[in-house]
Amino acid sequence: MRKQRGRASVVFENPPLIMAAASTVGKKEGDGPLGAFFDRVELDPMLGKKTWEEAESELQSRTAGLVIEKSGLSKEEIRYSFAGDLLAQLIATSFGNINLEIPMFGLYGACSTMGEGLGLGAMCVEGGFADHVLVGASSHFASAEKQFRFPLEYGNQRPYSATWTVTGCGAVIVSSGDCRGKEAPLAKITAVTTGKIVDMDFHDSMNMGAAMAMAALDTILQNFRDLGVDETHYDKIITGDLGTVGRRLLLDYLMKAGYRIESRYMDCGIEMFSPEEQDTHAGGSGCGCSAAVLCGFVLPKIRNGEWKRVLFLPTGALLSTVSFNEGKSVPGIAHGVVLETPDFL
Amino acid sequence: MRKQRGRASVVFENPPLIMAAASTVGKKEGDGPLGAFFDRVELDPMLGKKTWEEAESELQSRTAGLVIEKSGLSKEEIRYSFAGDLLAQLIATSFGNINLEIPMFGLYGACSTMGEGLGLGAMCVEGGFADHVLVGASSHFASAEKQFRFPLEYGNQRPYSATWTVTGCGAVIVSSGDCRGKEAPLAKITAVTTGKIVDMDFHDSMNMGAAMAMAALDTILQNFRDLGVDETHYDKIITGDLGTVGRRLLLDYLMKAGYRIESRYMDCGIEMFSPEEQDTHAGGSGCGCSAAVLCGFVLPKIRNGEWKRVLFLPTGALLSTVSFNEGKSVPGIAHGVVLETPDFL
Repeated sequence: MRKQRGRASVVFENPPLIMAAASTVGKKEGDGPLGAFFDRVELDPMLGKKTWEEAESELQSRTAGLVIEKSGLSKEEIRYSFAGDLLAQLIATSFGNINLEIPMFGLYGACSTMGEGLGLGAMCVEGGFADHVLVGASSHFASAEKQFRFPLEYGNQRPYSATWTVTGCGAVIVSSGDCRGKEAPLAKITAVTTGKIVDMDFHDSMNMGAAMAMAALDTILQNFRDLGVDETHYDKIITGDLGTVGRRLLLDYLMKAGYRIESRYMDCGIEMFSPEEQDTHAGGSGCGCSAAVLCGFVLPKIRNGEWKRVLFLPTGALLSTVSFNEGKSVPGIAHGVVLETPDFL
Repeated sequence: MRKQRGRASVVFENPPLIMAAASTVGKKEGDGPLGAFFDRVELDPMLGKKTWEEAESELQSRTAGLVIEKSGLSKEEIRYSFAGDLLAQLIATSFGNINLEIPMFGLYGACSTMGEGLGLGAMCVEGGFADHVLVGASSHFASAEKQFRFPLEYGNQRPYSATWTVTGCGAVIVSSGDCRGKEAPLAKITAVTTGKIVDMDFHDSMNMGAAMAMAALDTILQNFRDLGVDETHYDKIITGDLGTVGRRLLLDYLMKAGYRIESRYMDCGIEMFSPEEQDTHAGGSGCGCSAAVLCGFVLPKIRNGEWKRVLFLPTGALLSTVSFNEGKSVPGIAHGVVLETPDFL
C-alpha cells in the first residue's frame, strides 16, 4: 500500500514501463564483445562535429532521436527529459538537448546518472506527473580524458587499475503503466533504492572501481534490507562500471556480509571490452557505459524473460580535477533500480 | 483531478509544504540591502577551510544542518536530498552532503537549480515517495570566479553587464501536505512549470542576464498558458538572477507579448546588493542567490500573507569555460515554482 520501503527505497504500486530503449556507441565499443547488441556504432569519433564535446552532444541528440522514433511517440508527447553526462556544467547534455525542446531536468551523479535518472523518471511517471519521460546519459572517451586526465595528444600511460571511458549513450522512454504504447514494453520498473554518498577516504583517482565498490555495497545492502530480500531475489545484479578491481572488492565485501552474488553478478564495464585485446585495463566506465549496456544488452534479456528480475546499479565516483588536486578523497554513490519482465510473458 | 496541465506544468492535488527554510550568506551579501533577513552571515569567506571549494561545501553543510534543526526533524526522517551547485562535477554538493548520510539526487541547472530541486522535491513528496525531503543550492563568489573566469589574484575587470556571484546557500524542507510538522509551514507548493533549454545563439558570457531573459520569458508564458492565467494571478513574479540588463529585456519581451508585470516583478540578483556602493554591476547571481533570497526574504513574506501567491523562477545560463572557449553560445533555462500562503491564514 505505502510506496516507501525502509530508509531509501520505493516500491511502485503501478510500475512504470520502459517502452523503448536506444543505444549508440563508438567504434572501439562496437568492436568489443557486446558490439552486436547496440543499435548504432558510430565509426567517426567526432560524429561529424568539430570538438569532442560537440561530438558527445551529438551522441545524446542522435540517441534521443532514435529512442523517440522507436517509441512511436512524438517528441511533444514526452513531457520531461532527465539527462546527464560527466562534463563540467553538463555541457554535453545542454547542447545535446536543445533541439529536443522538451522540459529538462539536468542530473549529475557521475557514472551513476542513468540510475539517478531512472529513479526520478519512474517516480515522476508513477506519481502521475507525466505519461512519458525520456531518461538518458552519455560519455565520450576523448571529452572525458580531456576533462579528467590529459589531452589525448599527451599519450599518458595508465595503471592497470584504471578504466577506459566508454564512448556511448543510452536512452529510454519510461511510460505510465496505464499507457500501453505501440510496442510491447521492455521492462517494468518495480522498485528503486537511492544511494547516499559513501566516502572511504580513498585517494586514487586511477582506481575508481575501488572508490565505488563500497558505495555499491551500501546500496545493495540497503536494497536487501528495505525490500526484505536477499541476493536470490534477483536473477542478475548488474553494477555500472566497477571494473575488475571494484568487482573483486564488492564480491569480497558482500561475502563478509553473508551474501554470495558471484553466480548472478555482472558489471557493465567488464562486459564492454576484451581488456587484453583492446588494452582497456580494468574495464569500461563513464555514465554512457552502464546506460548503453542497459539499453542494448540488458533490457532485451529482461523482455524475453531470460532474466526475470534484475537489480541494475550504476556506480559513480564523485571527483573533479579541482577536488582531486586539492587533495580531497574520491567518494562514491550508487543508485539501484529493480527491473522486471513485463506481465505479458 | 489530473495533475498534468498543458505542456510543462503540474498542479498538485495535495500541495507539498515548505516546513522550514534556512539561508547562509557571505559578508558582502550580509552588508547588502537584504542582510538582515538571512539566518547567518559568515564573516570568514573560507568558513574555516583551506580552499574555496571546501568553503562552499561547508556553506552547504551548515545550511543543511540549520534547516534540519529548524524543521524539528531528525536527519533520518529526511528521505532524500536534492542538491546542486555551479562547480564542475558538483563537488561543493558532493563534499557538503557526505556527513548528512541522506540518499541524494545531484542536480545541475546552473543558477536555476533551486527551481529544479523544488519541482522534483515537490513531485517526490506529492507522489507519496517521501514524507520529507531537503532541497538546497549554493554558490560561492571565489569558487565561481576560479571556475568560470579568473583567479581572484588576477584582479580582472568586468563589464557593467556582468553579475557578481553570490556567496550563499538556501535550503528548505519540503514535506507532504499530510505531515504537519512542529512548526507552521512557510508556504505550499501548488504548481510547477519546468523549463526547456532556450538557445538564442547569444555569445557574451559577461552578460548572462541577456542570455537568460528569453528562457525566463519562455517559462513565464508557458506557466500562463498551462494554468490559464495571466500576470494578475500572482502577487509577485520573482526571477533568480537576471540582473538589471536581463530585467529590462524580460519586461520588454513580456510587454510585446501583452503582459505588464513591472509592478509585481522582482529579481533576487537585483535585490541582493546595492550596485553602486558595492560595485556589483548588474546584480548578484549564482544558484545560491535565488536560493538564499527565497529562504531569507521571500518565504517569510508568503507565510505572513503579504504575498499570497508567488511565481518563483530561478534562471540558469548553461555554459562552461570549455563550451564558451570553443565558441558555443550560452543557452538559458528557467524553472517556475508557484508558492502560496498556507491555508491556516
